[in-house]
Amino acid sequence: MSTTLAELTDRLIAFRDARDWQQFHSLKNLIMSVSIESAELLELTQWQDDAAVEGQIDEPEFRARLAEECADVLLYLLLIAERARFDLGAAAEEKIEINARKYPVEEARGNARKYTEL
Amino acid sequence: MSTTLAELTDRLIAFRDARDWQQFHSLKNLIMSVSIESAELLELTQWQDDAAVEGQIDEPEFRARLAEECADVLLYLLLIAERARFDLGAAAEEKIEINARKYPVEEARGNARKYTEL
Amino acid sequence: MSTTLAELTDRLIAFRDARDWQQFHSLKNLIMSVSIESAELLELTQWQDDAAVEGQIDEPEFRARLAEECADVLLYLLLIAERARFDLGAAAEEKIEINARKYPVEEARGNARKYTEL
Amino acid sequence: MSTTLAELTDRLIAFRDARDWQQFHSLKNLIMSVSIESAELLELTQWQDDAAVEGQIDEPEFRARLAEECADVLLYLLLIAERARFDLGAAAEEKIEINARKYPVEEARGNARKYTEL
Repeated sequence: MSTTLAELTDRLIAFRDARDWQQFHSLKNLIMSVSIESAELLELTQWQDDAAVEGQIDEPEFRARLAEECADVLLYLLLIAERARFDLGAAAEEKIEINARKYPVEEARGNARKYTEL
Repeated sequence: MSTTLAELTDRLIAFRDARDWQQFHSLKNLIMSVSIESAELLELTQWQDDAAVEGQIDEPEFRARLAEECADVLLYLLLIAERARFDLGAAAEEKIEINARKYPVEEARGNARKYTEL
Repeated sequence: MSTTLAELTDRLIAFRDARDWQQFHSLKNLIMSVSIESAELLELTQWQDDAAVEGQIDEPEFRARLAEECADVLLYLLLIAERARFDLGAAAEEKIEINARKYPVEEARGNARKYTEL
Repeated sequence: MSTTLAELTDRLIAFRDARDWQQFHSLKNLIMSVSIESAELLELTQWQDDAAVEGQIDEPEFRARLAEECADVLLYLLLIAERARFDLGAAAEEKIEINARKYPVEEARGNARKYTEL
């Protein structure tokens, strides 16, 4: 996890440009691809209840597929950030701060009701 | 983009634990949340064609909303990685390498047909 | 449930054309809208486990929201079928027959393993 | 399109019960499946712009895949309606009426701005 998002982006853009694939990467198509990959992640849990999903965390094959599907989603987020010129890491930091103000510790602590309004 | 995923995860877990919210974060619920947030990202482009979406990249308000929705997706990916104990940055690097082998430059270059099999 | 899909489609098209909204309904936008509405359906269950979701079936407010979100998805499916000129009801009947051949009763009965390959 | 939703539901439930699959169909799993199938529908248009998608409507193979993916989504909606005991057709009729009141013809006509607030 010591990888920076800038390093990942550099490798991803080198991969993309070596194949001349930027022409297919309209912002709308990249955004759609995030949803498509998210659904592949969802499919990993399709017919299992919460406990069954938790129970698979220690299975190396499940963990590897989970990591790969999450990676697919992240790579499209990085392509979107590069295309629209924003700093994804800074946006994530800012969002944590926004949520921290929105859900003050004293009110939100262990509070599912508050939480569902997230 | 100099932020590391480890630093982001540390802040996010501190936020979560201060509110005692881990109890709501089953792996299945976190995975579902990635799809829900991805659809909010998709909604930003709902009634616009590709050109109209590109045209909004320079509008500060659109860019801010785009960054915020991408951040929401990323934060859930980080919570999944923490819950299932894998390194999201390493998984993303590995996925770029897998794709590099799957789509050799000489065959994939500018090739939409090959590309659609991605 | 005695409503036919043709009757629903007629009402929906009358609604659309009275507002001159067909111009916004490219096939791609309609397809995206199915995913967006599906995620709103998913959001109804976001922080609840399977048992909690089942437990809400008898709550009138939950049932009403569930029905409304499912209706939103169905309406977009009907707009897609009208746009691309296929019979959604016939396609659904045909898909049940395809699945019946794919999952013969004697092999599939109570078989989760077979089922997950659906 | 003369098929009623009640007839489709009867066939679908007969299919399900012959295989004893109701045990896998928690409401939450059925709802997740709608999102998964919607993403397969989305995938049909993944690297194409609006015009390219429209251009495929007359290709029999594309139309057949489109119809099949829409059918998959509809079948899960019917399973949800059966599980939660609501009338999907009536819910769709009611939603058209709600939208008709929400978007009066005189204000909404040809109005993209109004429309995007749908």
